[in-house]
Amino acid sequence: MSTIFTKIVKGEIPCYKIAEDDRFFAFLDINPLAKGHTLVIPKQETDYLFDLEDNLLADMNVFAKKIAIAQKKVIDCKRVGVAVLGLEVPHAHIHLIPMNSEADVNFRNPKLKLEKEEFESIADAIRKAL
Amino acid sequence: MSTIFTKIVKGEIPCYKIAEDDRFFAFLDINPLAKGHTLVIPKQETDYLFDLEDNLLADMNVFAKKIAIAQKKVIDCKRVGVAVLGLEVPHAHIHLIPMNSEADVNFRNPKLKLEKEEFESIADAIRKAL
Repeated sequence: MSTIFTKIVKGEIPCYKIAEDDRFFAFLDINPLAKGHTLVIPKQETDYLFDLEDNLLADMNVFAKKIAIAQKKVIDCKRVGVAVLGLEVPHAHIHLIPMNSEADVNFRNPKLKLEKEEFESIADAIRKAL
Repeated sequence: MSTIFTKIVKGEIPCYKIAEDDRFFAFLDINPLAKGHTLVIPKQETDYLFDLEDNLLADMNVFAKKIAIAQKKVIDCKRVGVAVLGLEVPHAHIHLIPMNSEADVNFRNPKLKLEKEEFESIADAIRKAL
């Protein structure tokens, strides 16, 4: 059975898409820790990040870097933090989280509640900054 | 002035070293969130992870993968989590944190207090598993 992320890649579940190429896909986290919080995934279904082939892992991080640079241009933040936990969805994903303090990257923090229009506006701004 | 991490690379500050090559260095975090918590850094002083050149960023993650595989062999954990925050030390570093639940990767958690012998024993075990 497809993971929820594969369904997002296939368009079977809607998302606020940020970027896509032949191997990777990026979209806004629907339960963000910060405005612009984005998930980067490989299209290939692999549960654990470190099970990815070296070249895929390497290129995924370069793909993530492009997103992070765009996030930093349009989101008010000191930098973009990175987290990979991945015990919930069995499909490797890198969290890219705009942050102003170390405390911002804490998955125990309450998630932001944003309206559809706000997600769309953020996704649009990041896409345009790519 | 050198960062604290450059001083560690140069041997001016002691560490529990895990691995080293011409461009990267890995050592145990002295204030670990979990046993085996390791930091991976580029020898080149760069403050922000996403300021690294693409090839350095890519290869640093492949270097980190090797460490993570060794950590998982010798530390009792479900997988190795990744975090990059980096607002404290101005030298990019990837945290590799053995984890059993998402809550384990939380920098607000109390840090483990380990004896020198325990750090040495953990570092030795990870090195041997590389």
